[in-house]
Amino acid sequence: MNGLTVDSRVAGASPLLFTFNQPPQQAFTLAYPTTPVGHPIWQIPTPALVINPRKAVANYQAIQRAFPDATVGYTMKSNPNAMILDPIARLEDSWFEVASRPEIEVLARIGVGGDRVFYSNPVKQMSHIRAAIAGGVRLFAFDSASEVDKLAAFGLPLEVYVRMTVPHTGALWPLTHKFGVEAHTAVELLEMARARGLKPVGLAFHVGSQCVRPETWADALRTVAPAWAEARSRGIDLDLIDLGGGLPVAYTGPVPKPADVAAAVYRVLGETVPGAHRILLEPGRSVSASTSDMVLEVTGLAERPDGQTWLYLDGGVFSGLYEIPDGIRPAVRPILAEPRPLSMTTYRLAGPTCDSVDTLFEMRSPVELKVGDRLILKNTGAYVYGVGSTFNGFSVPEVYEASEWTLDMDEFPGIC
Amino acid sequence: MNGLTVDSRVAGASPLLFTFNQPPQQAFTLAYPTTPVGHPIWQIPTPALVINPRKAVANYQAIQRAFPDATVGYTMKSNPNAMILDPIARLEDSWFEVASRPEIEVLARIGVGGDRVFYSNPVKQMSHIRAAIAGGVRLFAFDSASEVDKLAAFGLPLEVYVRMTVPHTGALWPLTHKFGVEAHTAVELLEMARARGLKPVGLAFHVGSQCVRPETWADALRTVAPAWAEARSRGIDLDLIDLGGGLPVAYTGPVPKPADVAAAVYRVLGETVPGAHRILLEPGRSVSASTSDMVLEVTGLAERPDGQTWLYLDGGVFSGLYEIPDGIRPAVRPILAEPRPLSMTTYRLAGPTCDSVDTLFEMRSPVELKVGDRLILKNTGAYVYGVGSTFNGFSVPEVYEASEWTLDMDEFPGIC
Repeated sequence: MNGLTVDSRVAGASPLLFTFNQPPQQAFTLAYPTTPVGHPIWQIPTPALVINPRKAVANYQAIQRAFPDATVGYTMKSNPNAMILDPIARLEDSWFEVASRPEIEVLARIGVGGDRVFYSNPVKQMSHIRAAIAGGVRLFAFDSASEVDKLAAFGLPLEVYVRMTVPHTGALWPLTHKFGVEAHTAVELLEMARARGLKPVGLAFHVGSQCVRPETWADALRTVAPAWAEARSRGIDLDLIDLGGGLPVAYTGPVPKPADVAAAVYRVLGETVPGAHRILLEPGRSVSASTSDMVLEVTGLAERPDGQTWLYLDGGVFSGLYEIPDGIRPAVRPILAEPRPLSMTTYRLAGPTCDSVDTLFEMRSPVELKVGDRLILKNTGAYVYGVGSTFNGFSVPEVYEASEWTLDMDEFPGIC
Repeated sequence: MNGLTVDSRVAGASPLLFTFNQPPQQAFTLAYPTTPVGHPIWQIPTPALVINPRKAVANYQAIQRAFPDATVGYTMKSNPNAMILDPIARLEDSWFEVASRPEIEVLARIGVGGDRVFYSNPVKQMSHIRAAIAGGVRLFAFDSASEVDKLAAFGLPLEVYVRMTVPHTGALWPLTHKFGVEAHTAVELLEMARARGLKPVGLAFHVGSQCVRPETWADALRTVAPAWAEARSRGIDLDLIDLGGGLPVAYTGPVPKPADVAAAVYRVLGETVPGAHRILLEPGRSVSASTSDMVLEVTGLAERPDGQTWLYLDGGVFSGLYEIPDGIRPAVRPILAEPRPLSMTTYRLAGPTCDSVDTLFEMRSPVELKVGDRLILKNTGAYVYGVGSTFNGFSVPEVYEASEWTLDMDEFPGIC
């Protein structure tokens, strides 16, 4: 097993099924398992994003089960493909979180009315608010006086909730200060909304994306508690708490489950936000990430003056993998057609464009790779579809349904 | 002039045309100049990218004049809009630099054949090489043995040149090691190409994008000189040097002109790459950036716990301004319809999406801004069009021709 280590921290890692090539008169050679050229993983045109819609429903319902009394709004920006939206929309009790008029219009076209939508973008354009109201949306986040002006301009008792800043311990991206206010401003804004004829109903927060520390949600509730109490003491009848998103995905190792976060939340919910009969959640990544895997082809290889072996692929940052430079690291599965001995090799992955920022991550492969091999990038269902461009002429990945290609992507767990 | 400073380093800065509001019995007030609501800058739907195609031709020809014996290939990835490509294509002696099959196909559709195209992406897909050859392209960059295999597979004496690494002093982005080799590898690759039936003709380099130090091109020529000499001593008849791109744009201050870079180049060209009868250039940004300005609307304002005043716009990182977090900083011109006193105010600009990475830069405005004001982001013609997405449902900027909107964008120089 010279050079071979299977990192048990890698999500979904399974023991390699070693094949023993035994030519006469030679020692055993450990070979990387091959995938026959007739297998559909070789037929699918690359770059491809292979979606399993059933996983979207399973992930969504797992969150519902963990938070049985919550309204779970799927954050559609994480993957607005119809293969994800449609099956969730068909669930009777499903909700959606939106941030713009076009998102509301997409939902309307698949039969989701405003009564199953909340609008959590704290800063909205007037024309988008108008469209949301026309579409029946009644729940709006805000966090500034200028937003009160906009929302109040419609003369309706819209239900509004204030986005607060909270600690981001354990989140992959501590959010910037783009959104959110502190306690005294939150109370001021709730009062301002009431004075302008809006109906202030609650508070919202977001612990940051890919948050692996359940206690951070409890910390957030403790952080908003004083504003909640102060508002209620001033006669503002709050009954809604929006716990935001941030539920983590097992990209390269185990992460807390929705039930772990729920346990941390329910432990402090009653004491921190008493009377919060409506609990909102905005999961995006945790619903969509594991629905999809990206299939790419190796298009080039080069030793570089930096001492690294660079491996070029037909998909990269501009194909939608824009989160990778910021820290998301999918597990990878190399696919080979012909047998090759095991040999641990480190590669620096790069996308197809001429742009030097189009580089991905360093990968330790258990086998040397060649032009024509394929790589599966696991769990690339979130923040990939819909954010790519055709920069430099390269196509964004085509989206395929796994079952239509008779593909079971669970057959290929990530190993490096 | 309390609080007002006009930073003379800002490109295109012109003195403000102060209007003196003089209500009876009050002191003079310095007001920011207004733009009447009937002006087309208010009529154009935002987010907009306003293009002046004549500037593309002027910029392209200025580079031709500075390098009179060079082949100037417009790097179309920097802006592949037809309003930029068409007028350059109509010039009799124009060339284009491409990196993919779709780029070659776009050029073919506007009458540019492979005899006016060089393919500088060092790592190409076989299917793209095949399409390039079918389209008449004969000049290809490479920098790895695996690329020799691909290019040689077609059995044609394709002209090939090796991309080398060079110092990036003065470039905004020192390139990664994604592309390029050092001298001994360069010579090996040229020999390998010759042995495989290809025709090795030269060397290429790229000093890095937005390089403000002309001497860096001379340093690059000195860096490639030993490989050039060694190859010729081995009987490889090199006659082509590709000087790459990197010519800078005056985003927020003066930068060297093409003639300054040409002077540095021609001073050392003869001694470093003797016999280089063919000189290639790959300008992208320096041709396209100043052709276009982005027009955005202010959609929100908020004081945040970080002490900053955040200003929200209907365009941002996902609208195509992806280079801004990496360091490109366009000059800005605020547009107001009603008079407002001068008052220096610092804003943190942010895009419309819910994503916290969708933030732009800090701006010192000579006037307080309100929802409904507009901002012009100057010189946003490069690496903006074609790299945006509809993330979160927000539209990419529509592209308009300045003259069709009777807009002269030079009327609005950047001031902050």
